[in-house]
Amino acid sequence: MDDSWATFGRDLHLDLAGPGGLRASLMRALREAVGTGRLAPGTRLPSSRSLAVDLGIARNTVADAYAELVAEGWLSARQGSGTRVARRTGPSRTAAPRSAPAARRAAPARVPDRPRYDLRPGTPDVSGFPRTAWLAAARRALTTAPNDAFGYGPPLGRPELRTVLADYLARARGVRTDPENVVVCTGFMQGLGLLARALRASGVREIGTEAYGLYFHRDVLARAGLRVSPLPVDGHGADTGRLADLPGVRAALLTPAHQFPTGVPLHPDRRAAVVDWARSSGGLVLEDDYDGEFRYDRQPVGALQGLDPERVAYLGTASKSLAPALRLAWMVLPDHLVDPVLALKKTGEWQTAALEQLTLAEFLASGAYDRHVRGMRLRYRRRRDQLVDALAEQAPHIRVSGIAAGLHVVLELPPGTEQSVVQAARWQGLALEGLARFAHPTPSEAGGAAPRDALVVTYGRPPDHAFSGALEALLRVLPPAL
Amino acid sequence: MDDSWATFGRDLHLDLAGPGGLRASLMRALREAVGTGRLAPGTRLPSSRSLAVDLGIARNTVADAYAELVAEGWLSARQGSGTRVARRTGPSRTAAPRSAPAARRAAPARVPDRPRYDLRPGTPDVSGFPRTAWLAAARRALTTAPNDAFGYGPPLGRPELRTVLADYLARARGVRTDPENVVVCTGFMQGLGLLARALRASGVREIGTEAYGLYFHRDVLARAGLRVSPLPVDGHGADTGRLADLPGVRAALLTPAHQFPTGVPLHPDRRAAVVDWARSSGGLVLEDDYDGEFRYDRQPVGALQGLDPERVAYLGTASKSLAPALRLAWMVLPDHLVDPVLALKKTGEWQTAALEQLTLAEFLASGAYDRHVRGMRLRYRRRRDQLVDALAEQAPHIRVSGIAAGLHVVLELPPGTEQSVVQAARWQGLALEGLARFAHPTPSEAGGAAPRDALVVTYGRPPDHAFSGALEALLRVLPPAL
Repeated sequence: MDDSWATFGRDLHLDLAGPGGLRASLMRALREAVGTGRLAPGTRLPSSRSLAVDLGIARNTVADAYAELVAEGWLSARQGSGTRVARRTGPSRTAAPRSAPAARRAAPARVPDRPRYDLRPGTPDVSGFPRTAWLAAARRALTTAPNDAFGYGPPLGRPELRTVLADYLARARGVRTDPENVVVCTGFMQGLGLLARALRASGVREIGTEAYGLYFHRDVLARAGLRVSPLPVDGHGADTGRLADLPGVRAALLTPAHQFPTGVPLHPDRRAAVVDWARSSGGLVLEDDYDGEFRYDRQPVGALQGLDPERVAYLGTASKSLAPALRLAWMVLPDHLVDPVLALKKTGEWQTAALEQLTLAEFLASGAYDRHVRGMRLRYRRRRDQLVDALAEQAPHIRVSGIAAGLHVVLELPPGTEQSVVQAARWQGLALEGLARFAHPTPSEAGGAAPRDALVVTYGRPPDHAFSGALEALLRVLPPAL
Repeated sequence: MDDSWATFGRDLHLDLAGPGGLRASLMRALREAVGTGRLAPGTRLPSSRSLAVDLGIARNTVADAYAELVAEGWLSARQGSGTRVARRTGPSRTAAPRSAPAARRAAPARVPDRPRYDLRPGTPDVSGFPRTAWLAAARRALTTAPNDAFGYGPPLGRPELRTVLADYLARARGVRTDPENVVVCTGFMQGLGLLARALRASGVREIGTEAYGLYFHRDVLARAGLRVSPLPVDGHGADTGRLADLPGVRAALLTPAHQFPTGVPLHPDRRAAVVDWARSSGGLVLEDDYDGEFRYDRQPVGALQGLDPERVAYLGTASKSLAPALRLAWMVLPDHLVDPVLALKKTGEWQTAALEQLTLAEFLASGAYDRHVRGMRLRYRRRRDQLVDALAEQAPHIRVSGIAAGLHVVLELPPGTEQSVVQAARWQGLALEGLARFAHPTPSEAGGAAPRDALVVTYGRPPDHAFSGALEALLRVLPPAL
């Protein structure tokens, strides 16, 4: 493979939603690259097998696209020398093959619709999804499931999954529970919505959230009728001591293991303080343990829930450890919340797809989940090191904050530069998010600290083959040292 | 297999949620049956393969349970003669093996917690779920899915599924649509809830529903803030002509192909009337096509949506044709509703599990769905015939109403007997539902007709091996001719 393929291949992004599906999308991309000269005549393309693996698509899709492009005259294939960009007779590349007139029109320069690189937090590297092991678990689930599993199922979730989840969470996260308190949800947002509605129905009117967090979490709380009050966040996590000053607040949504997005763990004193507050006020802590399995420098801090299972509702998800597309999450509820949540589930959301639940149960019970998490932990750790090293070398004035955990770091920027860095990156096809996007809309209450300029950068999202390119793009848009 | 197994086997019901899972549950059931003498000494048990098929569980589970019970002394196994209930030395069966003391306590007579037979409508025969074909589709989906499919996906659903659904619905149900108007939902209830909220947000305050229907459908409409007004239902379906008299009503939820639960199709005049009403009033029809694929005496009536795709929102589901546990349903929306529904989906429910969507897309595209529906159609048709024939012979005074379609019939009862029939059935371990359970709570508006005493009986729910037993149980509790 020569250099012109290496650059092109790294940037290649298929548009699934486009007309004709993946094959057509791949053909369009290759036609354009050949037509514009980006792929030089004679460039050797990767084998269909290897490109299929890189793109995570079926080998036949690639082979079919190659075959059609050979037929159209864009590519040539010769026994023993693989597939290459066709060599033309004339020096000009404007004479595209007759059968593909659309490719003659070079696209005008513009901001790409879809970023070439995406370092926005929230999505893991889904190219690492363990397809083979998941299929094996699905096969066992489909083979052993009782017929009843295909009917309307228990609203709290399949007992098989709740049982193995209780074991796993005790072992991996220090959660104290029985299967009876585990509730399976169709994603974290469903669980959060159910809890918010149960709290509202029990008379709670106000909930504390971290001053930096996800706006759609605040929205789901607000839609349930809760007033959302920010707790200041600093280098020790959310200032849970402030809860005592907010008499209307009867619940608090926190990310204790790894504050999102600032990346710090909740200080031990504050962990103790929030449990004390919950006990003395009758309040509830909602523990969002979104990435608790990923810690690189030491054993992860155990779940806050272990300190008081009756005062902490624990929420976990497969979205970061496996894949968001599974729509599998779980709650571990205090006894008094099980029935209210059950009642709400029965009014509509009822149950999560049973085969997915049974497959996850098999996947956990067989040890495949542990193996997968170990493998991804190594991958993410390596990438974090690569990112931190590259910054130390090429942009030592940019401070990296946040512990060695999860899928993201925070890069501190010179004051006043956040928006322009995000914008400049966008023009270059790199999607970034600034810290401002995560701030509670009431900044005056948000800790009293001056607003920080920073980037929240994931090293988790790109597939392996695109990570170095994304990192280079990031380094290009960071502001120079003053 | 002798008679004592035949009776026991028909009633055998495993308690999945019990301690120790299926194997333990099967062992408990067998120990109790042997301990109480229900299974006589020497009774030959079915092969582990055959019992596993009957129960829809893994063969190994049965084989393991047999082996352990042989070890415990309850059963005996000899080469060539299969597994039998162990013969004891004494005549008394009270001396149970030492290792299983719990079995000595005979259970007191009581109403069974869980019915032996269940003829309540709403669930198909899930023992017919096409496990092998589904697994094959899941394998193809997992192998060919692009990596992006494992991330956060498009809120309207995977394009692969929307494309094949649009084709399928056009072909099988006469729906007129493009993939752009198809929205994948995590079950019918999610779709109905989204539509109800979209209608409410657009200013609709009142919706008409059929005077007989599912209370949880009415509840989901009411929770969205809609007032629910009943439309009378008679032998021609819902009286859609009445919509003109209800000026506040701007939408109507109907089951045109097969009114649920009364079992009649909407009369052609009323089909035309409701579309006219929607056009002239700017109203919307919500078409609940829950079982439109199952018609036994002729080609199914096409979807009402085909008459006016801009005035009818079509809702379909895999819950009756495949299995409720998949949580897969779909809507076909008028253009003007796509964006409002999309906006609501983005506030929380967002997407349905992607692998399930891709698996269904493969299942549809490969023809497996059509084959499965054809097979189930034959099975249900045979059962309906068996039910109707048995009634004609043994209870000719009970009139069967409803067309030869779907998964249920209505059995007309003598006035004043519905509640006592349902109650008597319950005592005998047969779960039934009376028509009263489906009536809108405002009976005075419900058509002005006298309340009918009737049973809504499914022939779909029991597995094949239990259907004859369920039918006999039903015949036993029907009131005699006067």
